Amino acid sequence: MKNNTLFTDFYQLTMMQGYVNNNRHEDEVVMDMFFRKNPSQGGYTIICGIKELADFIQNLSFSEEDIEYFKSLNKFNDKFLNILKEFKFDGDIWAVKDGTIMFPHEPIVRVKANILQALYIETALLSNINFQSLIATKASRVCMSAKTDMVMEFGLRRSQGLNAGLLGAKAAVIGGCYGTSNVMAGKVYNLPVLGTHSHAWVQSFDTELEAFRAYANTYPDETMLLVDTYDTLKSGIPNALKVFHELREKGYEPLGIRIDSGDLEYLSKKARAMLDFEGFENVKIVASDNLDEYTIEHLKSIGAKIDSWGVGTKLITSYDYPSLGGVYKLSALVVDGKIEPKMKFSEDPRKMNNPDFKQVHRLYDKKTDMAIADIITLDDEVIDSAKSMEIFHPLYTYKKKNIEDFYSKPLLVPLFEKGELVRKLCGVEEAKKRVENEKKTFWHEYLRNIKPATYKVDLSIKLWKIRARLIEKNRISI
Amino acid sequence: MKNNTLFTDFYQLTMMQGYVNNNRHEDEVVMDMFFRKNPSQGGYTIICGIKELADFIQNLSFSEEDIEYFKSLNKFNDKFLNILKEFKFDGDIWAVKDGTIMFPHEPIVRVKANILQALYIETALLSNINFQSLIATKASRVCMSAKTDMVMEFGLRRSQGLNAGLLGAKAAVIGGCYGTSNVMAGKVYNLPVLGTHSHAWVQSFDTELEAFRAYANTYPDETMLLVDTYDTLKSGIPNALKVFHELREKGYEPLGIRIDSGDLEYLSKKARAMLDFEGFENVKIVASDNLDEYTIEHLKSIGAKIDSWGVGTKLITSYDYPSLGGVYKLSALVVDGKIEPKMKFSEDPRKMNNPDFKQVHRLYDKKTDMAIADIITLDDEVIDSAKSMEIFHPLYTYKKKNIEDFYSKPLLVPLFEKGELVRKLCGVEEAKKRVENEKKTFWHEYLRNIKPATYKVDLSIKLWKIRARLIEKNRISI
Repeated sequence: MKNNTLFTDFYQLTMMQGYVNNNRHEDEVVMDMFFRKNPSQGGYTIICGIKELADFIQNLSFSEEDIEYFKSLNKFNDKFLNILKEFKFDGDIWAVKDGTIMFPHEPIVRVKANILQALYIETALLSNINFQSLIATKASRVCMSAKTDMVMEFGLRRSQGLNAGLLGAKAAVIGGCYGTSNVMAGKVYNLPVLGTHSHAWVQSFDTELEAFRAYANTYPDETMLLVDTYDTLKSGIPNALKVFHELREKGYEPLGIRIDSGDLEYLSKKARAMLDFEGFENVKIVASDNLDEYTIEHLKSIGAKIDSWGVGTKLITSYDYPSLGGVYKLSALVVDGKIEPKMKFSEDPRKMNNPDFKQVHRLYDKKTDMAIADIITLDDEVIDSAKSMEIFHPLYTYKKKNIEDFYSKPLLVPLFEKGELVRKLCGVEEAKKRVENEKKTFWHEYLRNIKPATYKVDLSIKLWKIRARLIEKNRISI
Repeated sequence: MKNNTLFTDFYQLTMMQGYVNNNRHEDEVVMDMFFRKNPSQGGYTIICGIKELADFIQNLSFSEEDIEYFKSLNKFNDKFLNILKEFKFDGDIWAVKDGTIMFPHEPIVRVKANILQALYIETALLSNINFQSLIATKASRVCMSAKTDMVMEFGLRRSQGLNAGLLGAKAAVIGGCYGTSNVMAGKVYNLPVLGTHSHAWVQSFDTELEAFRAYANTYPDETMLLVDTYDTLKSGIPNALKVFHELREKGYEPLGIRIDSGDLEYLSKKARAMLDFEGFENVKIVASDNLDEYTIEHLKSIGAKIDSWGVGTKLITSYDYPSLGGVYKLSALVVDGKIEPKMKFSEDPRKMNNPDFKQVHRLYDKKTDMAIADIITLDDEVIDSAKSMEIFHPLYTYKKKNIEDFYSKPLLVPLFEKGELVRKLCGVEEAKKRVENEKKTFWHEYLRNIKPATYKVDLSIKLWKIRARLIEKNRISI
């Protein structure tokens, strides 16, 4: 495992030395990570990246070389550098599980730790969860448009660097893709890898027919031909059909054709007719070419004859919304074991964080097992499902709803306790399964890609009062 | 150095086995990388990532474990796997240098190699150059808006994973940023790292004043205070001023304040007035908060009193254009040492690649040393600057221009010859310097951020004729 310890922002180090200098470095604080907006104007976010966060925390330690580097900056004193030499994480982290569906303002990760440690991990925590959650969510959106069709992740060449391609491929499969073209991701995460040939294959033979024949000779039982190198309808498909007939004579059935450019509606309809006419009703049509959830949905709704989808650039970068924008804020100090809630203020009420040491519960309807609302509470609040419960909008408090006949589930669960990993980290399979199961517990209104309904995320009355008191106190004090 | 060999698309492997199966695996081909559109509707692209491409090529080799993985896929035969065991790159690569300004359709990297090798490297080549060029270009745009103000890269937490943050920080500095907040990038690439404190610092003290005082005590000779945690004008700046006076009494001069939210025009003007009124005319005002080239330009044009800029999300992801979309196409076969030009066709004339074994020359005006046009030629064509030269638009051939009194420079230079690296790879300093120098050789019209003039990239008459002949031949044959 490569040591990623130095992945942080420089101000964490200057602050850390500041705490040491002010003799505050044994203080304990609570910080939480949350985001303010779902990506792509959607209604939900699939969390992913907890595993890499845990790897980062477990391997947190400065090498001699790192310390030398800090020395070379002429900014840090020996007392501080000696503390860094012994630096490791020994606090508590609670977090949701990879594959959980979450909503704006909910705590995703909650850190209770020594102030130096809690600060230091901010940047890596955010980068990991921001990116992978973004791609898992985008994949989920693309796959919802494709309905039961298979979606493949094809984006490595357009990724923001090779490692973004690697983590992105994994997140895409967790979010719903069947597999990836990325060989490294296939090996590292044991994902299905697929791919046949490119235009270069066709160009490298004297004729397209020869190229197709050579490919079919090599893979007679899984022949999939790319038909748009010269002219899809006049050259690509007629040549593919010749080769498909030859295959059939030898006792093989071809798999499909791929169209990578041009008018995908028109070409796919024509291709389907040509294939069917010659008795290849089972041959699949795969499409690629700058696809996203909107194009796929549109093509399907107008009856394009496409069976599966290769999605590259727009998925691996979440092109229309390339950063989740999650933040990590101080929500409490721990003074003599007691929580002192803290807030960052803003003129924009939505930009203020929720103070205190919190938990988030999901409430489910007992009859349907569908999620009704989430409620952010103090950590030690008990949700009593024996009684009915009134929830209300944290800003527009006249918006109220009475909930009965429900059960609840806390979403933050232990990840680290006193620096020890206390959870078996979930692999791709498990996270993918969780996404599927979670999606079944939300009404479709919340999950649809365009103008979704807003899922309710409310505050407990106790938390709401603490927040209101802090806001009032700030208003008076300044 | 981590072995990145498996970063490829699966179809490269299936094609490679196909060539082995068809006894074509000793064939030699020419492929080149180019892009079709400048990012962010701009007029130019700064190339970056050649260094990482070279690292990838030099370390190209499959481990035993990789071969085992391929075996486990039940798709590859022993003959092919044995070839992979010996696989390395022994071809020629010519490429531009990191920091070169390039334009759509120009060859950026030209590979002449055995077909297996030329195919295999496609994906890593593209991912590296696509991403880093994108960020270097975005940084250049942001810095042009900031004019002589300092711009800092602050985006690691919003990057598409930690490694995107690392490579992105480097590319941002090459593109024009002064430095980064990313400590890993600072160490790995020896970049200036900066950063002071976050809102958490302020929240962790009983009062903002205490927090500022504690920071100033630690860094009396470089005090920069973040003033927007509670209320910028009513609390942040008054508290900062108190601490600044205290510093001055002790013989120190404060450095600045940072504003990270709110109305940056209003707040910066008010802040400037408050600072000046109390005699702190030299205190700088730093702004951050979702900035990009458009916001910075606007704020400057309306007289916002901001001295330097921290740019995060929008730079590190190139938010409005998050993927360069570079491609890598077969342009020739080498048969018995002779070049056979090849093309991929398309209904869209702009989507067809330029065939043959090419070079690209930049023509400069002898009197001004400013770039006039680029011309893509066959590799062995000589540009005779003793004569005048007619260049013409490759699609709209009536657009002609006569060039006189010029000199020219070939842009593709050797990187690998017979698999050996033959160029000293350029570091950040050199690439950054090249960007600065290159920008001086282009008229501002080509470099401006919005609706720039289109720089001329034409084909030599020889290349144009080869292309026209191939298009005609394809039209007839299908």
